[in-house]
Amino acid sequence: MIEKRKPIEVTEAVNRVMTYARELTYEIVPIEESDGRVLAEDIYASHPIPSFDKSPYDGFAFKAADTNYASQDAPVSFEVVEHIPAGTIGKKTLKKGEAVRIMTGAPLPKGADCVAMFEICQTYQENEKEYMSIKRTINALDNVNRKGSETLEGTHLVEKGTYIHPGVKAVLATFGHATVCVAKKPLIGLFTTGTELLDVSDDLVPGKIRNSNGHMIASQINRAGGEVRMLGTLADDFEASYKAIQEALNEVDMLITTGGVSVGDYDLMPDIYDKLEAEQLFNKVAMRPGSVTTVAVKGNQLLFGLSGNPSACYVGFELFVRPVIQKAMFSKQPYPPKSKAYLTTDFPKPNPFTRFVRSRVVAKDGQIWIEPAGIDKSAVVTSLIETNAFMMLPGGTRGFKKGDKVEVIFLDTYQGQTEPWTT
Amino acid sequence: MIEKRKPIEVTEAVNRVMTYARELTYEIVPIEESDGRVLAEDIYASHPIPSFDKSPYDGFAFKAADTNYASQDAPVSFEVVEHIPAGTIGKKTLKKGEAVRIMTGAPLPKGADCVAMFEICQTYQENEKEYMSIKRTINALDNVNRKGSETLEGTHLVEKGTYIHPGVKAVLATFGHATVCVAKKPLIGLFTTGTELLDVSDDLVPGKIRNSNGHMIASQINRAGGEVRMLGTLADDFEASYKAIQEALNEVDMLITTGGVSVGDYDLMPDIYDKLEAEQLFNKVAMRPGSVTTVAVKGNQLLFGLSGNPSACYVGFELFVRPVIQKAMFSKQPYPPKSKAYLTTDFPKPNPFTRFVRSRVVAKDGQIWIEPAGIDKSAVVTSLIETNAFMMLPGGTRGFKKGDKVEVIFLDTYQGQTEPWTT
Repeated sequence: MIEKRKPIEVTEAVNRVMTYARELTYEIVPIEESDGRVLAEDIYASHPIPSFDKSPYDGFAFKAADTNYASQDAPVSFEVVEHIPAGTIGKKTLKKGEAVRIMTGAPLPKGADCVAMFEICQTYQENEKEYMSIKRTINALDNVNRKGSETLEGTHLVEKGTYIHPGVKAVLATFGHATVCVAKKPLIGLFTTGTELLDVSDDLVPGKIRNSNGHMIASQINRAGGEVRMLGTLADDFEASYKAIQEALNEVDMLITTGGVSVGDYDLMPDIYDKLEAEQLFNKVAMRPGSVTTVAVKGNQLLFGLSGNPSACYVGFELFVRPVIQKAMFSKQPYPPKSKAYLTTDFPKPNPFTRFVRSRVVAKDGQIWIEPAGIDKSAVVTSLIETNAFMMLPGGTRGFKKGDKVEVIFLDTYQGQTEPWTT
Repeated sequence: MIEKRKPIEVTEAVNRVMTYARELTYEIVPIEESDGRVLAEDIYASHPIPSFDKSPYDGFAFKAADTNYASQDAPVSFEVVEHIPAGTIGKKTLKKGEAVRIMTGAPLPKGADCVAMFEICQTYQENEKEYMSIKRTINALDNVNRKGSETLEGTHLVEKGTYIHPGVKAVLATFGHATVCVAKKPLIGLFTTGTELLDVSDDLVPGKIRNSNGHMIASQINRAGGEVRMLGTLADDFEASYKAIQEALNEVDMLITTGGVSVGDYDLMPDIYDKLEAEQLFNKVAMRPGSVTTVAVKGNQLLFGLSGNPSACYVGFELFVRPVIQKAMFSKQPYPPKSKAYLTTDFPKPNPFTRFVRSRVVAKDGQIWIEPAGIDKSAVVTSLIETNAFMMLPGGTRGFKKGDKVEVIFLDTYQGQTEPWTT
């Protein structure tokens, strides 16, 4: 009576899904709206930085050679022939014995090859002329930010697929990107399933629970950079559910359903995939939680059937959906970054299957430490409050001790890794 | 001629600013719009989770005692008297020898005290009645998610001041928060100053640069959770600048200016603070970059005078403005989190002053490693592309070697720490 499903390894499951991941398209947004978006173009330096020799300080610019014999006992005097604020080009070409008063960021005038800060210069007036004297030798190019010293014209600065944070935005502004070519957010349809689900605004009634998965996954989609279209809850009615899903596929880039993928009497998703003539890539994964996670493909659209259990649903999204969203937005590091961490506590539970434990990582004196974020059961929702990582424990292990090094997958980051990780 | 300023330690500067940091107000948003916002209320469990004894599997529920003598050779049979899908309350009270077919998440019927998964049950029909037999002993409470086993009613789950990520949102949905009380984003006015600044959309002209600080700081404000009001660029005109700043103060919670705080001829901010009768908390900090960072307070409004140099401006924001934004949004961990990391490379530069080096941290085999993100000069913008942390090097040190442990301040995180760090 019970359908036997053949579980596949997590890595294999991720690889099958990623075979169908594809880059989507771009859109143009004003730079003001580019925060948190992803670049859909490579950024090159369209001019050198600095684009001219400039003063890094408030001070005086002159010919360094004029100070060759300057000393405490023999100060050298300059006539100050011009003031150059930042943003202004000096009109004069400096001759021997002449200096300009120059502000931070202003271009060096012709004839000058160094700057001395105010602090080491003595100013005075004589015959209504302005003078400056200096008691030490300054070398040519001292205190000059040379043209191109930071970046040469044509340098490849930021890669397509990069998340736009304050540093990237500063570079975009520097090179005049008043508008930015960003990845269009993949539009992801989201159905929740289950007659037991109440709306968030409903009063609790016996036997039912409020729909937390929908809001949780919407939030995960937002965090991953996608755009969610919440399509509501499907009742346990095959024809109506089939029709709703079929219609939704015309409007979205990919589709997520939560629940309905197990072998229960009301788990309709497998039959719906069949009727849609969608190819199931897998319907059982050798992992906990989320073993019932099912992914199907119809044409070039992926249909993610996530578990209805909150923690299993959460894990399934991060492992299978997030990399597809990243790839859609041109990321060259679509996979969640994996590294190692030390256990803060014993974890005695044996693991017949690869396990993704909702966990919290903390930095401690140069090391990364990890602890389970709460009760490690698939139906549990409260452990997600503290979750910022998964502890990935390989199948066939008998538990771990405090201080053991375990594998960790980071969640709260826009960074990723190029290669899929293996379990 | 040159004003002598007395530098104060970074920690002292942060402390002075935080004396004036205050919690602001809240607003109510639909849960759908709560991602990335900050809770302005504590969240308690308004009911236990689960709120009823429920089945964690698809299977059969019955009285465990009925299987006391079950074995491979002596299966025990049950009459299946009802089907209970998730979300439905069973109508019958089970008697000895009776079972219900029950789905994952459905409430246990009266009289049942355990569940057996489908996989170990044999079903059959006889006389048009439905039966199930089982060949092993099941204990009372086996495979039952007990009411309150995850969370008891009244448990304090999430603290006011917590960032709303997918896990928090799942909890909000679970407890029926269709609307969420979140911290109102502090409104932060932003002026850039400097005649050398071109708009991002302008063509580059000799001696000028495009305004990158404005867009960078706007992005940092967004990342920190604030709301920016971009007020444009102030020309080097005292009266016009004074008036613009005075008017802006009527419209924002706090004000940032970039540039104009040094001792150059066109650095108008110190005099503007004076004319505003704003108290300067400090005008020089013993740090690099950003030593000219100036903070003033007028009434209960903070005025941040950040450096006009991109990297110095970036650092000043993260050290002085971000904690104020966090505090405004009720965070109990307003300070950027500090920890330690290992240097990937020699850093031979001696540090007469406390130095904040724009850096990149990476996780490597359980350890945190850090490397400078590019050229370590205050005017440099491109090093910010890779920056996700500051390396904090104490003043008076002579440089560091590859493998040395140094202090690190993390930037790309919504997490913080309760206590201010010391340099």
